[in-house]
Amino acid sequence: MTTIAALDTPAALVDVGRMQDNIARMQARMNELGVRFRPHVKTSKCLPVVQAQMAAGAQGITVSTLKEAGQFFDAGIRDILYAVSMAPARLPQALALRRRGCELKIITDSVGAAEAIASFGQAQGEGLEVWIEIDADGHRSGIPPEGEALLAVGRILHGAGMRLGGVMAHAGSSYDCSDPEALQRVAEQERRLTVQAAERLRAAGLPCPAVSVGSTPTALAATHLEGVTEVRAGVYVFFDLVMHNVGVCKVEDIALSVLTTVIGHQEEKGWAIVDAGWMAMSRDRGTQKQQRDFGYGLVCTESGEPIAGYVLGSANQEHGILHRADGVDDDIARRFPIGTRLRILPNHACATGAQHPVYQAVGADGEIEAWPRFYGW
Amino acid sequence: MTTIAALDTPAALVDVGRMQDNIARMQARMNELGVRFRPHVKTSKCLPVVQAQMAAGAQGITVSTLKEAGQFFDAGIRDILYAVSMAPARLPQALALRRRGCELKIITDSVGAAEAIASFGQAQGEGLEVWIEIDADGHRSGIPPEGEALLAVGRILHGAGMRLGGVMAHAGSSYDCSDPEALQRVAEQERRLTVQAAERLRAAGLPCPAVSVGSTPTALAATHLEGVTEVRAGVYVFFDLVMHNVGVCKVEDIALSVLTTVIGHQEEKGWAIVDAGWMAMSRDRGTQKQQRDFGYGLVCTESGEPIAGYVLGSANQEHGILHRADGVDDDIARRFPIGTRLRILPNHACATGAQHPVYQAVGADGEIEAWPRFYGW
Repeated sequence: MTTIAALDTPAALVDVGRMQDNIARMQARMNELGVRFRPHVKTSKCLPVVQAQMAAGAQGITVSTLKEAGQFFDAGIRDILYAVSMAPARLPQALALRRRGCELKIITDSVGAAEAIASFGQAQGEGLEVWIEIDADGHRSGIPPEGEALLAVGRILHGAGMRLGGVMAHAGSSYDCSDPEALQRVAEQERRLTVQAAERLRAAGLPCPAVSVGSTPTALAATHLEGVTEVRAGVYVFFDLVMHNVGVCKVEDIALSVLTTVIGHQEEKGWAIVDAGWMAMSRDRGTQKQQRDFGYGLVCTESGEPIAGYVLGSANQEHGILHRADGVDDDIARRFPIGTRLRILPNHACATGAQHPVYQAVGADGEIEAWPRFYGW
Repeated sequence: MTTIAALDTPAALVDVGRMQDNIARMQARMNELGVRFRPHVKTSKCLPVVQAQMAAGAQGITVSTLKEAGQFFDAGIRDILYAVSMAPARLPQALALRRRGCELKIITDSVGAAEAIASFGQAQGEGLEVWIEIDADGHRSGIPPEGEALLAVGRILHGAGMRLGGVMAHAGSSYDCSDPEALQRVAEQERRLTVQAAERLRAAGLPCPAVSVGSTPTALAATHLEGVTEVRAGVYVFFDLVMHNVGVCKVEDIALSVLTTVIGHQEEKGWAIVDAGWMAMSRDRGTQKQQRDFGYGLVCTESGEPIAGYVLGSANQEHGILHRADGVDDDIARRFPIGTRLRILPNHACATGAQHPVYQAVGADGEIEAWPRFYGW
């Protein structure tokens, strides 16, 4: 049996039991709320992970690039929402996927892009399925649910024979929350404004079958989802320290970690140098402005038990500096001798995963399996 | 002829003319200073880039992983310094490279690791070449040049029949500087302490042929390098906004950029949404604490002219938010309509390059060539 003992470091480990628990928890909550679940696969970009999500009950997937759409369509998944505003120049790629049989849905949030999509679709004789992105919290993209632009975009698409498939919103501002009441408020606002947009389209005689909302925090915080047909979430599959600080997971739920080796010390400073730098952890410092700053990650034993008070405080490309979060450990070289192997829990699972060509999936019996992930565009 | 007009976005562009100028400038400076130059290839991880460095006069390379060593050895480069403290568990990999003919040099900065290397080398009957890492500025790894540990490590290695190849230091604290006098002081300190370590080893009857120092800022700031035999530097090949703030390059020297497309707006906020998020730029926020914070990057036209005052202010995975650095541009949607293509200059070329499977090298005539890079360990 091959275990993590055989791995060179740094390596990205996935605790399969935790991942399955995270998947089961989210799917159960979606079932309780009575909505379909469409996981965002940008977190893992990894087929075995997505297959586990589908096996648990997910219906379709969300992607952040057309490359993801192509890869997962080739693996047999047909119902795919590309949840980044469609760049007109990429319409031929989207069309090619549809003509191969992919039920690809694209999104837009402007009159200009809607006109480009409508014009392209008409020229190609293809009724592209388009969803309208709604701005539910002002954090990024989307059309306001209450203005004229929403109906204008709907009429342009519908009038040109495109399939108006629904509305979607992502309340990314939920990442800034840290208490359950605030999360519930953001979740309810995301639901209410997205449903409002759908109702306005329908009242104007336009179709709007899908009402899609979601982010990991709002998906887990929502108390009801009246009017919503589906939820999207991504990072829940692994969770991470940012989500821990937001309050939607425990440290013990985090399924992704980076295996590393101690390669040196600066004893008088209380530093252990490890071979997980930012290349292995990513430069993501998402916990920097949260209630608890974990530096570049929280230190655990090789078997995954958190070591209270130790963080990866700073990082160069292939060097990490590990120390007590508060104060100097005078005994650092004896506590973590050269060769000691540790796991580091990441701030942001999407960013850390992206640094690695492969996840090493650790099963319940400790056996590992290499799960490739892809990158690029 | 294929030009960048044919590229989908986001894409990592290398301006080959600027890169060649950067390479020529550094090599000329090293020639003036009378030292060999050993570029750090962790910045590009790309064979055509390294071949250009070698063609300009570089002697050997520096790598940050044994994977880099293997890749570049397979491409015909024999003299390789692996400049991260040797983890004893990786000694068999290093030995395998040497037995294939690679003149691999490994480094250590502790008695414990030196003993492990000596013991392994003796057991294998192999005189591994080891350099001792010196701490010249307290920023990370290395042995103090003045203490007993230096001589102890030297005696362990030499006594066991290892080849004591030299000393090396990296004054990473130079990245925190922003004026020429401070840079010169750091460069002189790096030189002085590394030479001091070499002289102590020699005075103790130990060999120390190589005296290796370097970082891009200190390499360019050093006024003389008496006692030094070689310099290492990496990021100079592309430069970036961090190096601009440090004061060792102009914006016009930056050879790496990310080509992106405008995909939407939030007009009342003065935002253009582009398809270069942190996946394309990296999460590196190296300019955050410098004299000028460029957010996630400085905005340029598609042909590379800086657009004064516009930055990529924030980033999600595949979304960037572009706006004026100060104030709101009421005309953002007309200034940068949907479909507009722009280039973003990165904070940190090493981190941004690592997000891309390939560089698109743009020649003087505008013709592009795909230059693959590798990643992982």
